[in-house]
Amino acid sequence: MPKVVFSYFPVKALGESGRLLLAYGGQDFEDNRVTPDKWPEYKPSTPFGQMPVLEIDGKKYTQSVAIARYLGRKYGLVGADAEQDFEIDQNVDFINDIRAKAATVHYEADEALKKKKHEDFSKNFYPVLLGKLNDIVEKNNGHIALGKLTWGDFVFAGMYDYLKAMLASDDIDQRYPALKRVAEHVYALPQLQAYLAKAPKTEI
Amino acid sequence: MPKVVFSYFPVKALGESGRLLLAYGGQDFEDNRVTPDKWPEYKPSTPFGQMPVLEIDGKKYTQSVAIARYLGRKYGLVGADAEQDFEIDQNVDFINDIRAKAATVHYEADEALKKKKHEDFSKNFYPVLLGKLNDIVEKNNGHIALGKLTWGDFVFAGMYDYLKAMLASDDIDQRYPALKRVAEHVYALPQLQAYLAKAPKTEI
Repeated sequence: MPKVVFSYFPVKALGESGRLLLAYGGQDFEDNRVTPDKWPEYKPSTPFGQMPVLEIDGKKYTQSVAIARYLGRKYGLVGADAEQDFEIDQNVDFINDIRAKAATVHYEADEALKKKKHEDFSKNFYPVLLGKLNDIVEKNNGHIALGKLTWGDFVFAGMYDYLKAMLASDDIDQRYPALKRVAEHVYALPQLQAYLAKAPKTEI
Repeated sequence: MPKVVFSYFPVKALGESGRLLLAYGGQDFEDNRVTPDKWPEYKPSTPFGQMPVLEIDGKKYTQSVAIARYLGRKYGLVGADAEQDFEIDQNVDFINDIRAKAATVHYEADEALKKKKHEDFSKNFYPVLLGKLNDIVEKNNGHIALGKLTWGDFVFAGMYDYLKAMLASDDIDQRYPALKRVAEHVYALPQLQAYLAKAPKTEI
């Protein structure tokens, strides 16, 4: 078996999908959680100055969605043809649009402006986007695409707590009940239980 | 030949990659440029309330990068295996990170804040990110990945003028000379000349 190291901050956020997929694939890996104080030292060794980084026998892979698609292909979590793969890609990119939108608020340093943006987005963007995503998941029996488990589910499940924290609303689970089903599906997979039992619990 | 309609705003930005790929593939298509005043009327008919939308015999595809990957696969502009496809995906996602970063400045409504953010990003983010992207393209002989033409080149070429406008700097071509080579490569492809000759010229 190749030597695999997965490096990311000590949170789920954009790294957990990779960890979950490796666990799903039965791939032993070093779960290298880089704390913020160690990050400046580690950063220059990464391909783009970003994490996550997946290292397989010394070869480095970065960008969370690209890694998830790659591992998904390895572990049979893709579509049967170009049309089906497109559907996963399309829906994952839509999730990322929502994440990016919420991130512009979450990472706003000016508190007054952050509050203003949060109110604006909570009224004018989030309900439409999350409502649409909820519809997609409902139509797909609790999955992101194709009505079955794909790597797209891992991307969403891994970042769900992070996304909710950035959306800064405590009723996402209630208002968009299909969304948490995606996470529940993934976290209940028997292949993940050994990893989950030993992984540190994190809020996001 | 299927009936194909490609709908996007009357700019290149995130839609041009799809138009260029269709032209590259020799696919006749209706180039439906939806002006901002018509957008509210058209919007409800789109899958996610977003453009571009590619319609093939009535089936709708959305999300610009997913569309580009899908058309790239159709037209032989992908890698030879999962490793090579990963490299395209990774580098395209990195480009999108840069675009998203610049977009948070470009679409900031508060002019004073926009100026402040532009100064911050121009000093602390853009040089590192664009320098890294320039290195990637140099290493790939003027391409985004694999040292040859892939759908990733179309994504970058299509949005290059838009990206430069958002970066709000007039010396990107000079400081990062490899980047414009990607666009030049794509726009010089013989397959695109008929489309380019009739396509409206737009600034972004």
